[in-house]
Amino acid sequence: MNIPDKVINRLTLYHYILEDYEDGLFISSTQIAELLNMDDSQVRKDIKYLNNAGKCRVGYNVQDLKSSIEQTLGFETQKEAFIIGAGNLGSALAKFDSFSNYGLRILAMFDNNPVKVGNTINNKEVFHISKLPDLVRRLNVNIAILTVPRQFAQDAAIFLANSGIKYIWNFTPCVLAVPKGVKVWNENLIGSFLQFTSNDKDGV
Amino acid sequence: MNIPDKVINRLTLYHYILEDYEDGLFISSTQIAELLNMDDSQVRKDIKYLNNAGKCRVGYNVQDLKSSIEQTLGFETQKEAFIIGAGNLGSALAKFDSFSNYGLRILAMFDNNPVKVGNTINNKEVFHISKLPDLVRRLNVNIAILTVPRQFAQDAAIFLANSGIKYIWNFTPCVLAVPKGVKVWNENLIGSFLQFTSNDKDGV
Repeated sequence: MNIPDKVINRLTLYHYILEDYEDGLFISSTQIAELLNMDDSQVRKDIKYLNNAGKCRVGYNVQDLKSSIEQTLGFETQKEAFIIGAGNLGSALAKFDSFSNYGLRILAMFDNNPVKVGNTINNKEVFHISKLPDLVRRLNVNIAILTVPRQFAQDAAIFLANSGIKYIWNFTPCVLAVPKGVKVWNENLIGSFLQFTSNDKDGV
Repeated sequence: MNIPDKVINRLTLYHYILEDYEDGLFISSTQIAELLNMDDSQVRKDIKYLNNAGKCRVGYNVQDLKSSIEQTLGFETQKEAFIIGAGNLGSALAKFDSFSNYGLRILAMFDNNPVKVGNTINNKEVFHISKLPDLVRRLNVNIAILTVPRQFAQDAAIFLANSGIKYIWNFTPCVLAVPKGVKVWNENLIGSFLQFTSNDKDGV
């Protein structure tokens, strides 16, 4: 089933809430809606995308709802990725342990700075970028998380594509021109901030 | 005018393209659309939200289109913010110079770790978190960028609200319960990644 982007986004937030929920076996759509400052009818509509959401008269069973989100969004299907750029942002993402709970496993990092190569950040080794094509092939990884400085982003994207990467999660403020067959997802932080401040609303 | 979120997001991406565009005075909707692997009719529709987009027979005037996006999205209205948490993610955001071109000025950072307090990251001083209420008042800042570890996020949010912060840009994988009057924008990285990989499409 093709779930709309906004719904995927919200289901992930519901999952965050359930992770932290310690107040009982059940949670209502109203409780979820209040935390996110949204309408409870929207919460119920989103949850209809799931199978076995565990609804009963007193609300949703927390464990059932949690596993149902996990199954529907595929948290159990591990996707493996490399981080390109071992600067602050790359290191922050490498240290972000929540990723692995949600199906994203970072295997290694790459940089061209000899000072960084050989370091280990949260158990992820930093390799020289020249090792990328070989490791993409041998480990069969097709996702790259791009965190290099803006001025190197386009060249890096072409190098990734030539190395066999098929998905680029792009954290740079740069639109990447890539060959056909390579997908780019722009983590557009500036666009996100402008949405927040220009419409003056909560972000769900 | 209230511009839909998706359109704000795409207009920012068009601006990235124009920033890097060195091939002439004019750019067509088809050129923009190809870079983002989207439909050119959508590009033209988005640009209709702008005044003075500078359209003529050979395409859009690059400078006019750029300034028009800047005016419409308010890049010139500086918004000032504090970063809460001087770890890798906070430091990466403090070093992200593109923010200031898009109207976001980071004034300072806050942390509770004595080793970090007193440091300067990209000309932004790291203050002890206890200084926050006073600096919020004196500098009249109402935006906080929250990058603390997940387990401290909720307590930090309440502290921010009590200190007079009105907008929290939340980078933690945690849904924050905040008092009325405080807006939260969730930079939901995991939701973003799941959108990318579950629908297998470009992210625009």
